[in-house]
Amino acid sequence: MKYGIVMFPSKKLQDLANSYRMRYDPHYALIPPHLTLKAAFELSDGEIATYSEKLNQIAKNHRPVPLKISKVSSFQPVNNTIYFKVEPTSELQNLQKNLEELLPDAVSEYAFVPHITIGQKLSSDEHSDIYGQLRMLGIDHEEVIDRFHLLYQLDNGSWTVYETYHLGKE
Amino acid sequence: MKYGIVMFPSKKLQDLANSYRMRYDPHYALIPPHLTLKAAFELSDGEIATYSEKLNQIAKNHRPVPLKISKVSSFQPVNNTIYFKVEPTSELQNLQKNLEELLPDAVSEYAFVPHITIGQKLSSDEHSDIYGQLRMLGIDHEEVIDRFHLLYQLDNGSWTVYETYHLGKE
Repeated sequence: MKYGIVMFPSKKLQDLANSYRMRYDPHYALIPPHLTLKAAFELSDGEIATYSEKLNQIAKNHRPVPLKISKVSSFQPVNNTIYFKVEPTSELQNLQKNLEELLPDAVSEYAFVPHITIGQKLSSDEHSDIYGQLRMLGIDHEEVIDRFHLLYQLDNGSWTVYETYHLGKE
Repeated sequence: MKYGIVMFPSKKLQDLANSYRMRYDPHYALIPPHLTLKAAFELSDGEIATYSEKLNQIAKNHRPVPLKISKVSSFQPVNNTIYFKVEPTSELQNLQKNLEELLPDAVSEYAFVPHITIGQKLSSDEHSDIYGQLRMLGIDHEEVIDRFHLLYQLDNGSWTVYETYHLGKE
């Protein structure tokens, strides 16, 4: 089964992200607005219990992480994804590194750029137009996130939560 | 904020439910296939920690519950919702009763009819046609569910998971 690990920001930020996603993100209906800590990976039914226990351990070893957002950015020219840029604090980077290392074969070749997607799969013209507007947005948001979730993907592409892990809790 | 409590069945059953929901349920994109234990209710930000702790206690006091489905049914004439009828085992009923009582003011006036919706908001003609086909389906599914989730609703009507509770776990 295909799993992923994400953090959901507060309802307030999810509502704000959705106000853009509904128009600019075809994944709008597949998952709520989120910060991906570990992109899709495969686990067999036999592996899930052990893996989940390891995630519990990692969660206990980290404290709640600050989420700071001050601008809209884009992955262009790599791709046309537009996102809320999340400040890569050491707390967030350390947590992501620990999660990444948990499946050693699957360590990503890309650097971790924490973000919350608000638009993707846009044509070049759409991207220029929309990014031109959104980058002017004044956004200055700060909150603390105390949990992350393990999700699995259904056949239709949508994601269901399997488990919640609390940062810094015994 | 508006909260709800649900169980997600296995991926296999969710995929099966979605194969109908995609055509017959306008809530298809708002939440994965689920069994509702407690429909939408209001909690303030100040109440959520206490409430969540109580849910933890309830979860510990119950064991994983069997989920048995042997037919497709409909709430007609009350409404036109079509669903997988879930056998109301004592384990499931006791769990639901405990959850219902947790917010005493909010005790429902309806009896608990455990179900997984696969179609709703249908016109009378659509309902007759679709229910006529689906009730002939041979369905005989059995699994055990060991957790439930507390979700909150976003402004667009979709639901995000706040917390996962394990049945029978210290």
